[in-house]
Amino acid sequence: MSGQPVPSATYAQPRDLNEVFKRVGQQMTALDRFMHEQVASFEPEIRSMAAYCLETSGKRLRPTLVFISGWQGETVVNPDLVRAAGVVEMVHLATLVHDDIMDSADIRRNRRTAAREFGPDAAVLLGDALFSQALHIASQFPTTEVCRLVSASTRQVCSGEIMQTLRRRDTTVSMADYYRVIDLKTAELFRVSCLLGARMAGYTPAFATAANDFGRHLGIAYQIYDDLVDFLGEEKNIGKTLGTDLASGKLTLPLMLLLEKLPAAERAEVIEALHGGRPLPLAVSVERMRALGIADGVVRAIEQELSAASAALAPHAGLAPVPMMRQLCDVLRSQVTGLYAPSVAK
Amino acid sequence: MSGQPVPSATYAQPRDLNEVFKRVGQQMTALDRFMHEQVASFEPEIRSMAAYCLETSGKRLRPTLVFISGWQGETVVNPDLVRAAGVVEMVHLATLVHDDIMDSADIRRNRRTAAREFGPDAAVLLGDALFSQALHIASQFPTTEVCRLVSASTRQVCSGEIMQTLRRRDTTVSMADYYRVIDLKTAELFRVSCLLGARMAGYTPAFATAANDFGRHLGIAYQIYDDLVDFLGEEKNIGKTLGTDLASGKLTLPLMLLLEKLPAAERAEVIEALHGGRPLPLAVSVERMRALGIADGVVRAIEQELSAASAALAPHAGLAPVPMMRQLCDVLRSQVTGLYAPSVAK
Repeated sequence: MSGQPVPSATYAQPRDLNEVFKRVGQQMTALDRFMHEQVASFEPEIRSMAAYCLETSGKRLRPTLVFISGWQGETVVNPDLVRAAGVVEMVHLATLVHDDIMDSADIRRNRRTAAREFGPDAAVLLGDALFSQALHIASQFPTTEVCRLVSASTRQVCSGEIMQTLRRRDTTVSMADYYRVIDLKTAELFRVSCLLGARMAGYTPAFATAANDFGRHLGIAYQIYDDLVDFLGEEKNIGKTLGTDLASGKLTLPLMLLLEKLPAAERAEVIEALHGGRPLPLAVSVERMRALGIADGVVRAIEQELSAASAALAPHAGLAPVPMMRQLCDVLRSQVTGLYAPSVAK
Repeated sequence: MSGQPVPSATYAQPRDLNEVFKRVGQQMTALDRFMHEQVASFEPEIRSMAAYCLETSGKRLRPTLVFISGWQGETVVNPDLVRAAGVVEMVHLATLVHDDIMDSADIRRNRRTAAREFGPDAAVLLGDALFSQALHIASQFPTTEVCRLVSASTRQVCSGEIMQTLRRRDTTVSMADYYRVIDLKTAELFRVSCLLGARMAGYTPAFATAANDFGRHLGIAYQIYDDLVDFLGEEKNIGKTLGTDLASGKLTLPLMLLLEKLPAAERAEVIEALHGGRPLPLAVSVERMRALGIADGVVRAIEQELSAASAALAPHAGLAPVPMMRQLCDVLRSQVTGLYAPSVAK
């Protein structure tokens, strides 16, 4: 809301995600300080629990989107952007706390989940407290705008996750259903992060709309990428155990394409594993994936979203955030390439 | 925020809770319509689930507090009051959805809980969606005030419930701990309901503060009453099975007083049951309770809060809401009497 838009600039473009993170380093340091200060806003009895959730080593991807979409240069730390970034990150962390209860996950980012550390009951309530505090920070802006955007967005994230939960082990999920779920559960908060970044930095409504659309497409691309990472699992070169999504009964794009392409017998085996909720040892080498055209299909789907994300920015090429935003697309693009064909990428 | 304060009036005073509910009938009808309309704000895929939670036969106690604290006469239906009532009720319903997961409760108000109907995972997310929508409604007021008050209040409700959860089966809980928990988990939303009622109806800041304090003390009194109801259970005249709070390991005021007063052997038996998390058949007749002074102690604690609630209103005796608010205290008072000494009350 404050601050002056920065006109056309020719920044050197970051080549990988770490370089992007480095570029927003000053903003991120301010965010870390902000999140740390937020701990004191919780009731004394639950502060250590709040701190456990807030002071994570997470990627802080959504704050990065806020900072990049409201980019005004490396040394400009806009308190409104920091606060908005804090809101979206706290909403995201709250959803993770609840996700980990549902997935019965013990470990996230090399340490115990809140559900494991404090028990699932306390974790339900702790997630609620984080949601509430996120909205409380949102209410500290002069107008209701951030509250309005973030509360609606949070509701949509939850709705997307409800749909995903209700469709577990359902092998009749359509491609439209899949896109609808990832649009809500992931792209929605990406979208709002980018919109808030542009708005808080004082850019034009036209650019804010462009940032909004950019965020949505980037979010869809990111979720498909994330599903591909899960699908490929840890041993990505040769025969592998199909990932945690299969075990949890989640039907993702790579799985859907696999089901379409597999011969009947193998397909039946995968469907049975999905219904039974167990991992399935199945020889899906990168070569086989390529032969079946699955990787290509996934990459095409990601590319489609990344192109749409870039296209939304086209009329605003002269603005400071745009090169950074475009570069984020390129970084994701190269991560995808490196993932599904590591031998080519090396 | 709109509407004119109504000056001194001499309404006939309602004698029981149903009469209070009847008095706010027109406002409550408007609230029912409002809650029904809210269903359409949820994503189409989860509307039936939202409707299941929103269209309940609950007491709507918190909305009643909003309407009474902003009382301007039976025929004055103030849309701001209705909206504020909708916000606090939706927050309350969200907490119930999450409570029922933690308590593994199957039935509430004669039908299946959301956790039972949709499964615990979907219920976690559905509660989140209800919280989000409550804050979204709050963000539709012209200023951030309602968002700010309700989000902080929600965080405190959750904090109180976290403390209660972490202290389950802990028989060393102090009286101060007990009051702290009920202040947060119950009195906080009562307080904010009364504050919002007075504010939205346009009453003076001094009365809003009085309503705030009234709500807090009434909330504490109500929770102690509720704990007494649980303690007395269904068979309240003679020997009984100690209630669900004992089974869930919750230490409440009647239990704390009982532990103080029981002979050592029986006391050890209750503590063992509390640690083991099982109901305990124990002869605690009303006569024995009276002999031990437990009922008296609980009633004194309730009376202390009700007196403080009434006292807060003293300087504002001329305002329309005050007789209704005082009567609410009297109704609770007579319910308590009827509960612990039914033979006397009859």
